[in-house]
Amino acid sequence: MGNGLPTSIIIFGASGDLTRRKLIPSLFNLCRKGRAPKQVRILGYGGTAYTHEAFRAHLEQGIRQFAAFEFQPEQWAAFAETIFYLQGKYDQFADFETLDAEISKLENGADNRIYYMATPPSVYPNIIDLLGATGQLNERSGWRRVVIEKPFGADLASAQSLNRQIHKTLSENQIYRIDHYLGKETVQNILVARFANTIFEPLWNRNYIDHVEITVTEKVGVEHRARFYDSVGVMRDMFQNHLLQLLSLVAMEPPSAFEANALRNEKVKVLASIRPMNIESASKNTVRAQYRGYLQEGGVNLESKTPTFAALKLHVDNWRWQGVPFYLRSGKALKEKLSQIVIQFKEPPHLLFNGANGGPNPNALVLYLQPDEGVHWRFEAKVPDTISETRSVDMEFHYADSFTKTALPEAYERLLLDTISGDASLFTRADEVEAAWGLIDPILEAWDASHQTLDTYEIGSWGPAKADALLARDGRIWTVWNAHTDKK
Amino acid sequence: MGNGLPTSIIIFGASGDLTRRKLIPSLFNLCRKGRAPKQVRILGYGGTAYTHEAFRAHLEQGIRQFAAFEFQPEQWAAFAETIFYLQGKYDQFADFETLDAEISKLENGADNRIYYMATPPSVYPNIIDLLGATGQLNERSGWRRVVIEKPFGADLASAQSLNRQIHKTLSENQIYRIDHYLGKETVQNILVARFANTIFEPLWNRNYIDHVEITVTEKVGVEHRARFYDSVGVMRDMFQNHLLQLLSLVAMEPPSAFEANALRNEKVKVLASIRPMNIESASKNTVRAQYRGYLQEGGVNLESKTPTFAALKLHVDNWRWQGVPFYLRSGKALKEKLSQIVIQFKEPPHLLFNGANGGPNPNALVLYLQPDEGVHWRFEAKVPDTISETRSVDMEFHYADSFTKTALPEAYERLLLDTISGDASLFTRADEVEAAWGLIDPILEAWDASHQTLDTYEIGSWGPAKADALLARDGRIWTVWNAHTDKK
Repeated sequence: MGNGLPTSIIIFGASGDLTRRKLIPSLFNLCRKGRAPKQVRILGYGGTAYTHEAFRAHLEQGIRQFAAFEFQPEQWAAFAETIFYLQGKYDQFADFETLDAEISKLENGADNRIYYMATPPSVYPNIIDLLGATGQLNERSGWRRVVIEKPFGADLASAQSLNRQIHKTLSENQIYRIDHYLGKETVQNILVARFANTIFEPLWNRNYIDHVEITVTEKVGVEHRARFYDSVGVMRDMFQNHLLQLLSLVAMEPPSAFEANALRNEKVKVLASIRPMNIESASKNTVRAQYRGYLQEGGVNLESKTPTFAALKLHVDNWRWQGVPFYLRSGKALKEKLSQIVIQFKEPPHLLFNGANGGPNPNALVLYLQPDEGVHWRFEAKVPDTISETRSVDMEFHYADSFTKTALPEAYERLLLDTISGDASLFTRADEVEAAWGLIDPILEAWDASHQTLDTYEIGSWGPAKADALLARDGRIWTVWNAHTDKK
Repeated sequence: MGNGLPTSIIIFGASGDLTRRKLIPSLFNLCRKGRAPKQVRILGYGGTAYTHEAFRAHLEQGIRQFAAFEFQPEQWAAFAETIFYLQGKYDQFADFETLDAEISKLENGADNRIYYMATPPSVYPNIIDLLGATGQLNERSGWRRVVIEKPFGADLASAQSLNRQIHKTLSENQIYRIDHYLGKETVQNILVARFANTIFEPLWNRNYIDHVEITVTEKVGVEHRARFYDSVGVMRDMFQNHLLQLLSLVAMEPPSAFEANALRNEKVKVLASIRPMNIESASKNTVRAQYRGYLQEGGVNLESKTPTFAALKLHVDNWRWQGVPFYLRSGKALKEKLSQIVIQFKEPPHLLFNGANGGPNPNALVLYLQPDEGVHWRFEAKVPDTISETRSVDMEFHYADSFTKTALPEAYERLLLDTISGDASLFTRADEVEAAWGLIDPILEAWDASHQTLDTYEIGSWGPAKADALLARDGRIWTVWNAHTDKK
């Protein structure tokens, strides 16, 4: 796009699940909507032996199973013609020379290229080295962009090492580190809500906000990901990326422009303002636990100490947020699948009215990311037919009510489109990913160093009692606020 | 209440419409709900000849026709036994002596008394004089309260004169001047919304608000009130009381307590801050008009210049509101029956996103008083499946959704209960009513003095073109925002 050249999308790990479930359905949908560049070729690369035709058939199955849109055979047939496959290894110079030749042959001249890392993280460095060694990353004849799937590193040191390595052959603006959470509509709407409206920003600070809760919970356990999950745990799987991303979007200052570097500068500033933990503060402000039965899951180490749940109390030390705790929690095998951000306001400074249970309840703004996508204000209204009693009511906006015609698109669709367009706003920058690890590492180290036992929690609960105690100590409780079933 | 004495409610003008339609149904409902004092007697007083039984039968008809609750004969029978009637004149000392004797006989000892003026305003002074002359207003044996129906005066001079006269025999805290608008749940909710919530007050000033619109329109024409209406017009009938009350509630500073004098002090302060009109400013900032066909209504003077519609642009000269215009409009024979207050916010200070029609729309908070009772925020959300386009959506709260079990009570029910309880918060104080007239008089005088023609408007329109021009001049338009039928 932009320079009018054909675009090739090379997917490493093409025989894997991500390609079939997410990447190809998203690319197909972009083409259907006419948003992909006209001359686009997709080249799958992997260890499995496929003919082009067998690979296309394999992907068609995926489309039929996973795509949110109706399958239309003639559309697919046209799209499938742009898909090719090449078998190869991730550590063979010769294979990467073949790859380069194959792409050149397909495009027949200068082209733009996206290299998409859908492999296990362990082979990223090899692939990038070989792409560099075979001259495929220089931009003499079209741009070259590399998309890197999460996890990006397993701690600060490995993330730094990976950044160093890829910066040897790529400049930062060629790198698109995926956090698919940022591709979600409701996550992007956090910024729109904050910065396309006049009414939120004046309230968005320590003068009016009591605390912030970020909850991202799953109902399922580790399932087929047990072996991988056991090696990472909830901090690396959820907090380092998704939860800290959400925190950044909620807490950041207004950017000077809605543009990749302006936006990411502000996010990095937030991460840099979060007070890092040490052994002492981690013992006070973090909770980790494992669900009962986790050790019996196939693939899990029988003596595993991997936490499947964590709750943190974080402090953002800057002018806007001083004294406003951010409570984060995430885990598996919990009561509900729920992603929500609760902005809990302070009490009015002077109480003129009686609430149904004493004083009026403080206001709350809830940004629902999942499953009920929308925005809710909890505010006090007069109870009719009383002198001046108030009760909490809910002012609601549901995406589904206002935008009925548009299904929320798959996060990958947006992210692939942005990669093609060269907009890295919704991707993680090197310093950002390192800053996030810089916050997670000390917590993991504190847990390793401390001899405190790992708590357990029941499947289907809201986590261990200590997570409730973390807030109860401050006179607060976690909000679970399901607009459809459980108004409070 | 409070002192344990029986309470007598004496209604002057008891054979009139108000008694049958509003007062008795409200008193009956208070008794049904167990909120009236146990020993309450109602004594109707009027020119018509009724026996107690005939009066009760007349009222029963009214209950069956006008009460919002289901008629239950045994409840009514018990209540009707507390109702009595006395025929008398409003200017006969002897009749008022009889009245006093009648009440004493009914109550058989010390009692509290409410005298309710449901007569035409012209006889208020006579009645109050005679109550004073017959010793019925002194509080030696129970309290004495006088409820005065609107209109309270026809201009500043007559309101001042009436206040002087009633202050001769009554202290201000015995006087309950009715503006039934203040008895409405949704009007009271304006204060609850502002002061039981943290989120509104920080936004509620010239830093964030562009302008305020107050619209109170009626679909009907003058109907059976033609003769009376022609003598007063829309300014005296609607602006002096209802619209200025709404403005006061929206614009006032937080009171020190939710208590009659604290509340009314703040309202008077707002009225005192409104910039008074002179001939020149009235010609620029006011619009008056008459609906086509008004002169043909039975009872209307054929050469009447009485306006049935007016629109004003008012300035509140204080720290909070400097530079924020308040646009008020009200009239008869318009497109819809609608009472709403629109708080229109400024644009965000820095535009990061594109709205569907250029920049994002500024936010608005709409307080719906009628017919859709509730609160609505108009805010910008991201349009799904676009890069960063925003669109206005509506976050809604409907009274009917949250308080389904409670029908909104009749305004008079609350006001009568407050009179019994001695809470004058929702009644107009002497200085308040005079301050309101002090704003209306110069406008009426400017209209009389100017030779500008009276505009006409079509029945079923939104008023004359000049009312639109009043806002268009400032680059604004009237908001008609019906959540159920006309989302914008």
